[in-house]
Amino acid sequence: MKPTLYTSLSPALLHLYNARSAIVVIIDVLRATSTICTALYNGAKYIIPVDNVPRCIEWGKQIECVTAGERDGRIAEGLEHGNSPYEYSREFIAGKTLVLTTTNGTRLLYMAIEKGAAKIITGSFPNLSAVCDYLIAQQHNVILACAAWKDKVNIEDTLFAGAVIDRIKDHFLLDCDASQIAASLYNEAKDDLLGFMQRKNASHYHRLSGYGLEKDIQYCLTEDVANVLPFYEEGKLIIRKQ
Amino acid sequence: MKPTLYTSLSPALLHLYNARSAIVVIIDVLRATSTICTALYNGAKYIIPVDNVPRCIEWGKQIECVTAGERDGRIAEGLEHGNSPYEYSREFIAGKTLVLTTTNGTRLLYMAIEKGAAKIITGSFPNLSAVCDYLIAQQHNVILACAAWKDKVNIEDTLFAGAVIDRIKDHFLLDCDASQIAASLYNEAKDDLLGFMQRKNASHYHRLSGYGLEKDIQYCLTEDVANVLPFYEEGKLIIRKQ
Repeated sequence: MKPTLYTSLSPALLHLYNARSAIVVIIDVLRATSTICTALYNGAKYIIPVDNVPRCIEWGKQIECVTAGERDGRIAEGLEHGNSPYEYSREFIAGKTLVLTTTNGTRLLYMAIEKGAAKIITGSFPNLSAVCDYLIAQQHNVILACAAWKDKVNIEDTLFAGAVIDRIKDHFLLDCDASQIAASLYNEAKDDLLGFMQRKNASHYHRLSGYGLEKDIQYCLTEDVANVLPFYEEGKLIIRKQ
Repeated sequence: MKPTLYTSLSPALLHLYNARSAIVVIIDVLRATSTICTALYNGAKYIIPVDNVPRCIEWGKQIECVTAGERDGRIAEGLEHGNSPYEYSREFIAGKTLVLTTTNGTRLLYMAIEKGAAKIITGSFPNLSAVCDYLIAQQHNVILACAAWKDKVNIEDTLFAGAVIDRIKDHFLLDCDASQIAASLYNEAKDDLLGFMQRKNASHYHRLSGYGLEKDIQYCLTEDVANVLPFYEEGKLIIRKQ
């Protein structure tokens, strides 16, 4: 019997799925989970995800680390670094600890912890293959959990769920309309993800490009440029060797 | 300035949108909103939607009416009629009052009432044109509210939202990724909605076809065969003349 795969298109739908018996993949393409794999790929020691800005500042006082965070697409007040993968070059982040809080991605990660998820990893296009290889190898139930935007379903996280499904569907039972919808969307978009986001006037594309962050968007939609697997363990995201 | 159009893919997401300033379109293609327009089209005096089976039975004792309801795709215990549009022929329903409760559709309608929706109508493929004509004429904000299946996003309600968007998008601001996703899905499926549901192994298709209800599904996906506009007013769904 194959394990099951479900897609939760919004954090407000996560409670409908049984996280206790599943690997939960946290998906926040623009930009938390793209930045997380990038920082680890570039040698960050580990990442401490936190769910609010004051806690992030507090960590900064207690340990030697880089504190970073974003609210509504901009660097959060009181923090020095933001949520752009381009901030976390090897020169800057190698050997350092990153403490990170974001509007949607880290909040969803904390929801998955509270719901007792069996395992938690993070995924985005820059580590698509690492995610798929891991999920196929584990032969365990999966929930693809989209971070969305303040609970509103978004295109980019749905596209990433679709990309994963496209690659691993033969290994899972897919009795889940949301997964079929995600896979359909990805199949329409896959030849030109950025162009698709532009044509569909994706709300987050619009928001970030308004801040001059088109380069970030292009990076976050590029496959396997930071192909490591961030794995949540005892309060930290670390690289999981497969 | 054009009015806005949003799509809520699940009742669990409805709170994200401002129902007070919008026409809320209740969408439960399989089968509540298909059956509602069919019964009215065939001459039902009006329909009283109720949110639970005991209340439905209670109405049956108090007024002369047909009590009908469905739970998990079958006729609910204690009620004589179910949720199939084929039960409500002109011969049977003309001039009668129908009291109806369903798993998802009537529950969502009650949520919309509680949220203070400015206006509530119901939509499905059998009354697609009536819905679109009304929404274009009103020039008011719109929420396309999918009933889903126990809060899980489903294909058929998403497809209907996409069909509406496909026809009326030029009249509205569409700053809503869920609407874009629905429109994309519909565009992929529109030449053969039933075949699409089969190919995607839509969970509700699977459920109903297991009960021998393929004919119902085919009907519920057919445009404009019961093209009236059910409008909610003072506890009743009645035909709104446009």
